[in-house]
Amino acid sequence: MPYVNIKITNEGVSAEQKAALISGVTDLLRTVLGKNPATTVVVIDEVETDNWGIGGEPVTRRREKGM
Amino acid sequence: MPYVNIKITNEGVSAEQKAALISGVTDLLRTVLGKNPATTVVVIDEVETDNWGIGGEPVTRRREKGM
Amino acid sequence: MPYVNIKITNEGVSAEQKAALISGVTDLLRTVLGKNPATTVVVIDEVETDNWGIGGEPVTRRREKGM
Amino acid sequence: MPYVNIKITNEGVSAEQKAALISGVTDLLRTVLGKNPATTVVVIDEVETDNWGIGGEPVTRRREKGM
Amino acid sequence: MPYVNIKITNEGVSAEQKAALISGVTDLLRTVLGKNPATTVVVIDEVETDNWGIGGEPVTRRREKGM
Amino acid sequence: MPYVNIKITNEGVSAEQKAALISGVTDLLRTVLGKNPATTVVVIDEVETDNWGIGGEPVTRRREKGM
Repeated sequence: MPYVNIKITNEGVSAEQKAALISGVTDLLRTVLGKNPATTVVVIDEVETDNWGIGGEPVTRRREKGM
Repeated sequence: MPYVNIKITNEGVSAEQKAALISGVTDLLRTVLGKNPATTVVVIDEVETDNWGIGGEPVTRRREKGM
Repeated sequence: MPYVNIKITNEGVSAEQKAALISGVTDLLRTVLGKNPATTVVVIDEVETDNWGIGGEPVTRRREKGM
Repeated sequence: MPYVNIKITNEGVSAEQKAALISGVTDLLRTVLGKNPATTVVVIDEVETDNWGIGGEPVTRRREKGM
Repeated sequence: MPYVNIKITNEGVSAEQKAALISGVTDLLRTVLGKNPATTVVVIDEVETDNWGIGGEPVTRRREKGM
Repeated sequence: MPYVNIKITNEGVSAEQKAALISGVTDLLRTVLGKNPATTVVVIDEVETDNWGIGGEPVTRRREKGM
């Protein structure tokens, strides 16, 4: 029954990587808390780098600076 | 003043269906809790089936299996 | 499989009212989109009035003004 | 370490405006609470007007009415 | 830089279990996507069983039925 | 009409500081995007330090280490 939301920047994440995140988080909740995988929901949000800020500036600018 | 977020998979939901969700949730909050519709906010997120997991796998794979 | 999050101020909502919100939203998603109630998740967050702002001020202050 | 999520309708917000929101919110958290800008995360979600409801109807319809 | 939100019912989760969720999710994001643990944020929300609905009813009622 | 969610650790934030966050964010959205303060909603979540992770560990442990 848990609900997990993963937010990451939209920078070329493949369907296989998303599937690995989904199965990994579901396993973790089963192992640590005994949660039933059948009702564990995982939602991945891919956010444009213009729309994600850290350190007071958009990730787009940090990428331009090589950060 | 309530805020409601509805997350569903992105599988062909029409503008009319979204309007029905918005009016239905707003009515429910007015009926059950007396909340003012004028300040009730509803946000619908449509999530790609690769990005939605249940049962440890993406919905894309479940749809391929006919689930 | 939908996930719905309802945020309201923490002002004496009863367990019966919460149950009515949960069943009402679940019915709405079944009726409008054909979603399966068995995997529809609803989470209600009750937020202290000091922590909810509208019109640039906390709801606590608005309640003191009779708004 | 704070996390801030800003949801707005998708109506032509520029990269410069998003950068101004990110720097403004980060400054506010530093000024009011002494939070470290280096670990302050801001995520902006732009929501289609069909998917945003207020007053029981989608913003799309309100825009058509000149609201 | 990822942000992960885990929502679970408030049913006696220990500080050690929460620490295991935090380290497990952070490791997963490093392994699958190469994300830097130093800026990976995880927030766990524990939700009262009256406030969590599945199958159209609160978890409180399901627990009373032995589900 | 914007909706802003601010998540911070629960470490003694006063009602005055919360009011300053609410008015500051509302002003920022008016200034940068011309958004109407009357319908700008701000919700502040205070999260226990056991439930907030960064760098793969709970903030509680980081505070014990003087971080």
